[in-house]
Amino acid sequence: MCLGDDPTCAAFAEHRLRYRRDMQPERRAFLKSGFVASGGAAALAAGGLSLVSPALAEVGKGARPSVHHHLPATAETVHWGYFSRSLTPQVEIASGDYVTIETLTHHANDDAERMVTGDPGAESVFLWTKERKGVARRGAGPDDAKLGPGGGLGVHICTGPVAIRDAEPGDVLEVRILDVAPRPSANPKFKGSTFGSNAAAWWGYHYGDMLEGKKREVITIYEVDASGDRDWAKAVYSFPWPGVTDPNGILHPTIDYPGLPVDHTKTTRTFDVLKGIRVPIRPHFGTMGLAPAEAERVNSIPPSYTGGNIDNWRIGKGATMYYPVAVPGALFSVGDPHASQGDSELCGTAIECSLTGTFQFILHKKRDLAGTSLEALDFPMIETKDEWVLSGFSYPNYLRDLGPDAQNTIFQKSSLDLAMRDAFRKMRSFLMHAKGLTEDEAISLMSIAVDFGVTQVVDGNWGVHAIVKKALFAERTA
Amino acid sequence: MCLGDDPTCAAFAEHRLRYRRDMQPERRAFLKSGFVASGGAAALAAGGLSLVSPALAEVGKGARPSVHHHLPATAETVHWGYFSRSLTPQVEIASGDYVTIETLTHHANDDAERMVTGDPGAESVFLWTKERKGVARRGAGPDDAKLGPGGGLGVHICTGPVAIRDAEPGDVLEVRILDVAPRPSANPKFKGSTFGSNAAAWWGYHYGDMLEGKKREVITIYEVDASGDRDWAKAVYSFPWPGVTDPNGILHPTIDYPGLPVDHTKTTRTFDVLKGIRVPIRPHFGTMGLAPAEAERVNSIPPSYTGGNIDNWRIGKGATMYYPVAVPGALFSVGDPHASQGDSELCGTAIECSLTGTFQFILHKKRDLAGTSLEALDFPMIETKDEWVLSGFSYPNYLRDLGPDAQNTIFQKSSLDLAMRDAFRKMRSFLMHAKGLTEDEAISLMSIAVDFGVTQVVDGNWGVHAIVKKALFAERTA
Repeated sequence: MCLGDDPTCAAFAEHRLRYRRDMQPERRAFLKSGFVASGGAAALAAGGLSLVSPALAEVGKGARPSVHHHLPATAETVHWGYFSRSLTPQVEIASGDYVTIETLTHHANDDAERMVTGDPGAESVFLWTKERKGVARRGAGPDDAKLGPGGGLGVHICTGPVAIRDAEPGDVLEVRILDVAPRPSANPKFKGSTFGSNAAAWWGYHYGDMLEGKKREVITIYEVDASGDRDWAKAVYSFPWPGVTDPNGILHPTIDYPGLPVDHTKTTRTFDVLKGIRVPIRPHFGTMGLAPAEAERVNSIPPSYTGGNIDNWRIGKGATMYYPVAVPGALFSVGDPHASQGDSELCGTAIECSLTGTFQFILHKKRDLAGTSLEALDFPMIETKDEWVLSGFSYPNYLRDLGPDAQNTIFQKSSLDLAMRDAFRKMRSFLMHAKGLTEDEAISLMSIAVDFGVTQVVDGNWGVHAIVKKALFAERTA
Repeated sequence: MCLGDDPTCAAFAEHRLRYRRDMQPERRAFLKSGFVASGGAAALAAGGLSLVSPALAEVGKGARPSVHHHLPATAETVHWGYFSRSLTPQVEIASGDYVTIETLTHHANDDAERMVTGDPGAESVFLWTKERKGVARRGAGPDDAKLGPGGGLGVHICTGPVAIRDAEPGDVLEVRILDVAPRPSANPKFKGSTFGSNAAAWWGYHYGDMLEGKKREVITIYEVDASGDRDWAKAVYSFPWPGVTDPNGILHPTIDYPGLPVDHTKTTRTFDVLKGIRVPIRPHFGTMGLAPAEAERVNSIPPSYTGGNIDNWRIGKGATMYYPVAVPGALFSVGDPHASQGDSELCGTAIECSLTGTFQFILHKKRDLAGTSLEALDFPMIETKDEWVLSGFSYPNYLRDLGPDAQNTIFQKSSLDLAMRDAFRKMRSFLMHAKGLTEDEAISLMSIAVDFGVTQVVDGNWGVHAIVKKALFAERTA
């Protein structure tokens, strides 16, 4: 794939133009960050956090140096609301390669003026007239679903997939998040600003348990600092969901299909909202992972053993993910970018805000894993600078555990009590296999030094994570 | 009460002697800390974190300056395994006063040589021969319980109660934890060292879900740094619970009664345990709170609306608690000291380690609370330097909610899902009433900036806490 850097490509001129347009300073501030200034991709490997790196050690040793790819978000490069083992890769890379990937929030149309207008990538994805729809399928449901193709059974705009050469089921894919940057508004009216949307929606934890008045969905638009000068966001205005009639004439009284274009001539905006409140920014990717093997098309909402919609704010810059590969090529996709989220994602969404990430991919072959910390890894593991974070779910692999109707059943089975059980078992296993403790040692240590938290209570397959600090093992040789 | 500082007291000589013994350097290291060096109690008020302080403003204004009391832990000053509205106060204080309170871990007899021997206070509490028992009642059960008086229905050695003059139901008691220090071993053999015990017990979350062999209880003894030079603890040795026949001839095959004297001629110790692992120290009080109104004697294990066994490691030095007063005098007690605990206290205990705390008590009268953040507070609230931490429980007031058999029923009703619901409601209420947000603002903010965590899954009334950073409100005037 030519990114405007291959003069032998037939479409080089067009690609070069797109590349240069993409590089306009407001849109690509992240490329000006220390990451590129310090020498670019080649400099990144040194700062890595890899758990076990026989694979990394090989990177760059062969005839082929690591390559830095770029994957923009357009109607052609995203799949909306689902993972699938059958998607055609947008790019195929080798282990050790870097990919800068644009991601778009599926809530951008809550305020298209701020988050879509003037942004060619977002405009192509959100395009929806009576005659044309940039991305027709939204969700894993049927093509002829009442609400629209895909039925909204899955909501996240995912960019990808990225195929990793030679990846096979049983391998582990390490994904390092080297940089994360907000995507500033492309509308000259809001030059220099970045926005996000928080939807307190019908799938939120609070929805059946409100104090005042009737059930309602409320959108709050936030301004997120894109300069790096401030580490907090602020609310701009809010409005109750007005009901939206989509371009095909279907009425959506609630947020039951993603990307609905809100008509702000019909909203009532409150600008006096959350005055004086500073929301700490924690930019991260809510949904990121590999294609599962169990079904042809998988709803993007419930997280599972290959990752997906984990919704843990620790999956941000500097973090590394480890995923079990379930299908040939691994098929990595990323979306659901968040500027900020609390543990629980209580109302159903975060500050949903388009972000661009730079990732490095390291493939660990199954044959090299025996005796390492990654042997038999069967869940998505998070590594941050200081911590290991393990993701427990109500059902660790709901597609396998809940039978043929798993994608519906999971939404009736949400439970923190089940997720806690899973997080306990995963942490025990990690301490025993990755850290060499006996079961009794692991249990004592978990009680006195491991913190369990509520990841999310809104994604069907609810999450509890277990955190252990790396410093505990500083003296340990095993 | 004369603390060896009132020459008019009839027992002045004896009290003075005790005071001087208590001041021996190894035992009272905390009194040499910056706290006293910098001018003592009077200097403490300035560093306070009070939420609303009309009450504090009054402190010291009257004829009577604040007084610093001292409450040692002895067989006479502790109650073991229960709270009660009917206990005779050990000391009555005025709002604004300070009390230094010794607390003893109920697990000290897991290794009496390290944690009891040579320590007159601990020896008096743990004394148990066929003829004499320093503290006969252990728990809220009947006097003639099979396992021993009190039946072990409640396990924590609580020092107190402290009565606060003029405290009445409807008031709020603010308790500031000004200093926390470990209690070094009094056995010359272990001079300069402090120890704690972690019991992976039958009430632990893991107990019915073990991988290897049969169900077992395992004790691990930890050494805790008492010098302040290190912020971590290390395991010393472990042993499977050997079964203990108590001095009255009753066999305890499991840890079913607190304070059982372990006979180490019958244990098998493993010294090769958790080698090279450093456990971060988080000294705090697992059990701390006021007497509830609902029952004559209340098992110390399930936490409730007046606090008690919250088991949140954030209740340490620098933290402030706010409790609703339920009975005249408030009747504050503290025990269950922990050197370290993770969120969940998974195996049933922390590093249980005797500590001494210095507290200041501020009484907020009901009549002064209208319009303040503390109005109608009906749960124990934690304030740390940077955060507000609200404690959700499976049942916010189980004594009221679960009927006459509540103290048994609660152990069949443990649920994180229920505790999450309670934590959500409490945080919503806090944001609306203490911070002046609308319900919709509160819900949006909770989703993007409040972290929910698992406090404990071992105390019957399971806990989920909600944390909001104070910095969010830095600009807010309301």
